[in-house]
Amino acid sequence: MQDRLQAVKAQVQAALDRAIAALPPGELRDAMAYACTGGKRVRAFLVMESARLHGVADDAALPVAAAVEALHAYSLVHDDLPAMDDDDLRRGLPTVHVKWSEATAILAGDALQTLAFGLLADPAVGDPAARVRLVAAFAQAVGGAGMVWGQALDIAAETAAAPLTLDQITQLQGGKTGALIRFAALAGPLIADADPAPLAAYADAVGLAFQIADDILDVTGNEDVTGKRVGKDVAAGKATFVSLLGLDGARAEAARLIAAADAALVPYGPRAGNLRHLARFVIERDT
Amino acid sequence: MQDRLQAVKAQVQAALDRAIAALPPGELRDAMAYACTGGKRVRAFLVMESARLHGVADDAALPVAAAVEALHAYSLVHDDLPAMDDDDLRRGLPTVHVKWSEATAILAGDALQTLAFGLLADPAVGDPAARVRLVAAFAQAVGGAGMVWGQALDIAAETAAAPLTLDQITQLQGGKTGALIRFAALAGPLIADADPAPLAAYADAVGLAFQIADDILDVTGNEDVTGKRVGKDVAAGKATFVSLLGLDGARAEAARLIAAADAALVPYGPRAGNLRHLARFVIERDT
Repeated sequence: MQDRLQAVKAQVQAALDRAIAALPPGELRDAMAYACTGGKRVRAFLVMESARLHGVADDAALPVAAAVEALHAYSLVHDDLPAMDDDDLRRGLPTVHVKWSEATAILAGDALQTLAFGLLADPAVGDPAARVRLVAAFAQAVGGAGMVWGQALDIAAETAAAPLTLDQITQLQGGKTGALIRFAALAGPLIADADPAPLAAYADAVGLAFQIADDILDVTGNEDVTGKRVGKDVAAGKATFVSLLGLDGARAEAARLIAAADAALVPYGPRAGNLRHLARFVIERDT
Repeated sequence: MQDRLQAVKAQVQAALDRAIAALPPGELRDAMAYACTGGKRVRAFLVMESARLHGVADDAALPVAAAVEALHAYSLVHDDLPAMDDDDLRRGLPTVHVKWSEATAILAGDALQTLAFGLLADPAVGDPAARVRLVAAFAQAVGGAGMVWGQALDIAAETAAAPLTLDQITQLQGGKTGALIRFAALAGPLIADADPAPLAAYADAVGLAFQIADDILDVTGNEDVTGKRVGKDVAAGKATFVSLLGLDGARAEAARLIAAADAALVPYGPRAGNLRHLARFVIERDT
C-alpha cells in the first residue's frame, strides 16, 4: 500500500498545483497553494482505490481526488481561524491566517471550496451524468447536513452546558470528518454508477475509526510528529472518544471498527487489499 | 418589468426557503435562511429572463436563480465579517456575525456556497450536460479568477500605497460583482447550449453600471432607504468610480454603459424588453 500511497500523493499534489497555477498570481493564490501542500492524502487515496475497484482509470479519478483534498484543505483553513478552533499550527507550519491574515484565510478557504467543485466538472472525469452525480453527492457531503453541519455542532458543543454523549459525538463526527471520507470512498461507484453499499459501510467504519485515532493522538501524540497542537481537547475539557471510553476502550472500539471495515470489503475479494491496509494505517499512524 | 420582478422575487424566495428547510434545524440553518431573505434579486431576474429568451421553462431556471442568490448571500455574509469589510448592517438588519457570531457567519457562508452548487445539480434544471456546463461556469465565476479574486483585490487595495486607477477598479469590479452577474445573464445560453455572446456583452455593461450606481449611492444614498451603511468609501479614502470620475462623470459613464447594454440586446428584438428595463432600473434604483 505504501508505494501506491506515495504515488497518489505525488499525483494529487501535481493535480492541485496545476489547478492553482491556472489562477491569477497573488497572495490569495499563494495561500491556496500553501494550504494544499502536505498532508497524509488519505482521502485522495480512498478516491483512487475506490475508482480502481470500479474500473475507473487513474486519469479520470485524479481530478476527483484533487477536489476532495482541496475541499479538505478549505475546511482546515476555516476551522483554524480565531473565531473557530483558533489553531496556529498545521502540518508543522503556521496556519494560513497566522502567515497571511484572517481575510486571506477566509477568501482562500472560499476559493478552495469553489476549486473543488470546479474540479468535479473536469471532462477528464467522465460523461456529464457521472460528473453531475459527483457534484450532487459532494454538495450533500459538504453542505448543511454534512461536514459544515458537523463543524457547527462542534463549535456549539464548546459552549454547551453538558459535555456531549457518545451518540452525539458519533453523530457530530459522522458529519465533520465522516461525510467527506464517505464521499471519497464512493467516488468509484458514483463515476461508474455502481452499487455504493459495500464501500459506504467500509467508509463509515473507517471514518469513525479515523476520528477515534485522532482523539487518541491528541492524548498520546507528539507535537513534533503530528505537526499540530496536541492536548487541546483535554485542556478545553471537551468530550472525546477517549474521555468517554477511556484510552483502552477507544483503542478497542477502533479495532472493532477496522474489523467491520474489513468485513464490508468481502465482495471485492483480494483486489481490495490496499483499502484493507488503509484501514489499519488509519489507526496505527502517529500523525 | 416590475410585475415579473415581483413574481421572480417570490419564486426564488420560495425555492431558497425549500432548499434551506431540508437542512438539519439549528443556528446554522437559521443564519442561512436569514442571509437569504430580502434583496433586490437582480441576479435571479437575470437568470429567469436569460432562460426565457432561450426557451428554458421557469421551473428549470428556478434552481439556477436560487443558486445565484445563495452564492450572492454567501459573499455578502463573508464580506461583512470583521476581518473583511466589517459591516454591521445589511438590508436594514444586523449582519450575520453581529446577530449570531463570527463562527456562525463563516460556516453559514461556507454552507451557502455549497448549497448553490447543489442547486445547479438539480435534475429539474435539465440534462446532465446542461447542469455540468452550469457547474463549470459557476466555478469560474466564483473561483480564484472571479468573485473571490475581486474581493481579494479589494481588500488588498485598502492597504495599498496608492489609490487604484480607473483600469484597476474596472478590473476589480469585473471580478467582485461582474463575474456573478455575467454568469446569471448567461444561464439561458448555458442551459440551452446557445451562443452566449450577446448576453455576455449585455452583462458586462450592466455589471459595471451596477457598480458605478453603488458608488454613486454610497455618496448620495440614504441609509434608511439603502439598508446599509453609506459614506464608508469616502470615509476610508477609497478610490471609487465617483472619486475618479466625479459624480457627473460617473452618471454619464453609467448612462453610456446602459446604451451599450441596449445595443447588445438587438439580436433578441422586443422579447428582451425586461432586460432593457432592468438595465435602467440598475442605475435608477435608490437601494
